[in-house]
Amino acid sequence: MPQNNTTSRRSFLKNTTMASALAISIPQLVSTAFAAEKIKKRVTISKGDVILFQGDSITDAGRRKEDSNFNNASALGSGYSVLAASDLLYQYADKNLKVYNRGISGNKVYQLAERWDKDCLSLNPNVLSILIGVNDFWHTLTNNYTGTVKTYQDDLKSLLDTTKQKLPEVKFIIGEPFAVSGIKAVNEKWYPAFNDYRKAAREIAENLNAAFIPYQSIFDKAQKSAPGVYWTGDGVHPTLAGARLMAHAWLEVAKG
Amino acid sequence: MPQNNTTSRRSFLKNTTMASALAISIPQLVSTAFAAEKIKKRVTISKGDVILFQGDSITDAGRRKEDSNFNNASALGSGYSVLAASDLLYQYADKNLKVYNRGISGNKVYQLAERWDKDCLSLNPNVLSILIGVNDFWHTLTNNYTGTVKTYQDDLKSLLDTTKQKLPEVKFIIGEPFAVSGIKAVNEKWYPAFNDYRKAAREIAENLNAAFIPYQSIFDKAQKSAPGVYWTGDGVHPTLAGARLMAHAWLEVAKG
Repeated sequence: MPQNNTTSRRSFLKNTTMASALAISIPQLVSTAFAAEKIKKRVTISKGDVILFQGDSITDAGRRKEDSNFNNASALGSGYSVLAASDLLYQYADKNLKVYNRGISGNKVYQLAERWDKDCLSLNPNVLSILIGVNDFWHTLTNNYTGTVKTYQDDLKSLLDTTKQKLPEVKFIIGEPFAVSGIKAVNEKWYPAFNDYRKAAREIAENLNAAFIPYQSIFDKAQKSAPGVYWTGDGVHPTLAGARLMAHAWLEVAKG
Repeated sequence: MPQNNTTSRRSFLKNTTMASALAISIPQLVSTAFAAEKIKKRVTISKGDVILFQGDSITDAGRRKEDSNFNNASALGSGYSVLAASDLLYQYADKNLKVYNRGISGNKVYQLAERWDKDCLSLNPNVLSILIGVNDFWHTLTNNYTGTVKTYQDDLKSLLDTTKQKLPEVKFIIGEPFAVSGIKAVNEKWYPAFNDYRKAAREIAENLNAAFIPYQSIFDKAQKSAPGVYWTGDGVHPTLAGARLMAHAWLEVAKG
């Protein structure tokens, strides 16, 4: 369940001693979230791996589109992808990794599908990280988008099935769509409908035996250390602190 | 001494088993470099600290100048500053930190001095991180710049003395200018002259009892895991892996 910690956030603001004590546990936040969600599946980063980050604006994070190169900071944007990539390239300096970002702002699943040959298959990734779904819901509220959760689930399943046929060895990392309720864009209209998109992503990951990142649980837990707006400015897009939080979660499932 | 490890780099390329064994020690690389250089001074990050990154293109790292905000990913650029900032903001979520980047590409010390009121003093930093000096030398080779190492030393000393007068409580973090010899821009014309700039920065740090980051030693040691071009494309500007390496070094001297 997202956002059931208004009370603990309030106590945080009232009681800084308590907040400091909680903040000490920040390094354990991510592993605690995986344990609480009973998620065990991990992906191994191997020598020569091509790692592709795919998704919407959260993945795009202002990357310079005219520069499509791997391992390039500005081509990777300023979000969780570049932060996770910097750690991979540092920690596994001997593995000759190539890390690409092809997230595009505003994308829903069908828009990934439209550019999949060029922006996924042709790069021949060994590791495909995909975070998509918040727009598949959000745009039903704001952009007259008529897709339903079934559209999302069917489209994502179909996209990943096709990918697995074309790239049988690919290792999937599927990120849970998340939102921080009560912040700017994210109001009561999101619930409970949005939760079904989270559930759909998780089911698809389980059926594919893919690694799954429980971002919602992670953002929920992070609010024990600092209020929601510290981690996301509008409820959807992470701040720099939120991007680092996501990168830690990503690195939790992908190890050398 | 920089760049005395051509031999070990060659063995690295010949012997991948050995390289893998060395790569395992990557997490220890930074602390080993500090220990080897006998550097013990650290800076404490406290609640409410304003942290300012200052310097040249290595610090600038393509930051969006029209966005001067603290803690903002694109305003912090895509170099070591944003990577270090992301860790600070994540790890010390309860400390209400403000992190700014005011590095400007091409700057030498006198150019920092010209914009110091606006780009340092007015921000009232508690922690001032400064990495400057490579252009003070490099531009004598390429831009007909006539400053000497004495100019560099006097200008930097004067800038930091003034800063200390105006901000008596400021904690300094001084980065060692560094270069990776044999890569593109960095040829034999750099040596031994460039080494004096490194020495000057270190002396100033010692006299001020400032924290000092031995970047040269760190880039030298990193070449045991991957060749120099993996860490810097032109010998001066770090790659994403090199920026992460620098951020780790930075975080080694600044702890909460």
